[in-house]
Amino acid sequence: MDEAAFLRRLRELPLHPGARGLADDVAIVGPFTVTADALVEGIHFLSTDPATDVAWKLAAVNLSDLAAKGAVPEGIVLAYPLSDPEWDAGFLNGLAEALTRFACPLIGGDTVSLPPGAPRVLSVTAFGRDAAAPERSGARAGDALWVTGTIGDAGAGLALARGADGPTELLAAYRRPVPRLSEGRALAPLATAMCDVSDGLLIDAARIARASGLSVTLDLAAVPLSTALAAHAGTDRAARLRAATAGDDYQLLFALPPHAAPPVPATRIGQFASSEGLALFDGADPLPLPARLGYLHASAKPHGEPSG
Amino acid sequence: MDEAAFLRRLRELPLHPGARGLADDVAIVGPFTVTADALVEGIHFLSTDPATDVAWKLAAVNLSDLAAKGAVPEGIVLAYPLSDPEWDAGFLNGLAEALTRFACPLIGGDTVSLPPGAPRVLSVTAFGRDAAAPERSGARAGDALWVTGTIGDAGAGLALARGADGPTELLAAYRRPVPRLSEGRALAPLATAMCDVSDGLLIDAARIARASGLSVTLDLAAVPLSTALAAHAGTDRAARLRAATAGDDYQLLFALPPHAAPPVPATRIGQFASSEGLALFDGADPLPLPARLGYLHASAKPHGEPSG
Repeated sequence: MDEAAFLRRLRELPLHPGARGLADDVAIVGPFTVTADALVEGIHFLSTDPATDVAWKLAAVNLSDLAAKGAVPEGIVLAYPLSDPEWDAGFLNGLAEALTRFACPLIGGDTVSLPPGAPRVLSVTAFGRDAAAPERSGARAGDALWVTGTIGDAGAGLALARGADGPTELLAAYRRPVPRLSEGRALAPLATAMCDVSDGLLIDAARIARASGLSVTLDLAAVPLSTALAAHAGTDRAARLRAATAGDDYQLLFALPPHAAPPVPATRIGQFASSEGLALFDGADPLPLPARLGYLHASAKPHGEPSG
Repeated sequence: MDEAAFLRRLRELPLHPGARGLADDVAIVGPFTVTADALVEGIHFLSTDPATDVAWKLAAVNLSDLAAKGAVPEGIVLAYPLSDPEWDAGFLNGLAEALTRFACPLIGGDTVSLPPGAPRVLSVTAFGRDAAAPERSGARAGDALWVTGTIGDAGAGLALARGADGPTELLAAYRRPVPRLSEGRALAPLATAMCDVSDGLLIDAARIARASGLSVTLDLAAVPLSTALAAHAGTDRAARLRAATAGDDYQLLFALPPHAAPPVPATRIGQFASSEGLALFDGADPLPLPARLGYLHASAKPHGEPSG
């Protein structure tokens, strides 16, 4: 069963009203915005990634979902598998760093043992409050598509973590993503739709369009690349396509009314219209969609179909 | 690093006020009682346990922590590793059964992939509301120790799940525990301390005593055994000790003032006093403590030391 099929079946279970049909990355439970993200060794991180960085990333990817809602972190719940003492100690150090940096306390959790040699599965449920952002489905025809920061650094950083040579900024983007909490707070009252870029710029843009019942046109030439990435991987079409489909960026992707200016640094990369699907351009040249729009869980899905 | 050492280090992190020093099985977050429990294949369940039963148990063990607080289930968040379609389908069926039975909706969650052959790690964060029970630390000298239901069935059921012969009631107790939600609601206003029996009757009794700054005396002869367990495993001292240290019972263990009677069926099995530690009797005979009071995560702990 692939993730989309599993989600369809999950939607037939008794659902909490705040689950909103499991259509979003977060749920609303009383005064809280609640999200959950797990990281799996060998899938979401490498066995050779330092434990301190894995802990940081675990906190960061969860807080990124709260950032996309303009929420203030209330705290996290951690399910942690004990393994070797050195790794556990490193994990605790990285977690302490992240929780302090993002002003997000630990609420509680569970520690478990793993069978010898089992890959680590690290789960967090994060709570936010005062969320002010609309759902992913709120974009309107004519809205512009914007993104904060730069795209593709973490994807290139993953190759570095696997042993390639390259600038440390890119490795840091992969191992130490920074959830855009203050940007999310500033954007929430203005954006008509917002999400974080976790699985890839193209797939996440297609998801906003689909949830909003619209099409989106995206200009690959406008996708912001960092100086480090441009120097490392170039800026040609293939490099831009890699950046736009790599994922793990944890930037904010959002829709704004056509003439609105974002209150934080961001780049305009596309536009929504009354149609459906994703159309890709490189400046004035229409491009065929790549076989993969981003990272997909399991592999049984049709190419490029955005998951729910 | 064992669980106790890890917990000590966790307590040095920035903690949410509702985490209450991570001393309890639950945290208080706004109007909610929050708990998290993970089940690991090969540790908490067998690869041969049916997926439907694993799903049921995952929901039940989390709701059992809410029952011990007298809380009403608000919903659960699930972190789920996709594996083979048949197992996933069975899991969904069992989850649907449990959520319907316990009137507990799904709030949201995350689905992830696992490397081939990796043991499943299933995590739930459960939300309850209207909790009315005191903390584990509220027992007073002179209070009596009580337990609902019968003890040891699930421990014997685990042996059956591993292939031994025996009555199906015991197997069901292991695979389909029932969180004592209504009992918890009835007991919460009266109990001075309460917890569920997850790791073993002796270790959980010792934890209440330690958290309350008291000693507890427990009469092994009074520990309630089911007819099925008595017929299957006997009722001698060794059988009672096995039952009292096996864990996975998910009954409620609670302290009541000396002359109070519980409003639900329960058995008086001991008493708290102004001292420290656990003293075990078999009727009038004092017994040495067994080497293990219950199930402990990781193995580096001194024998019988209650974990936090």
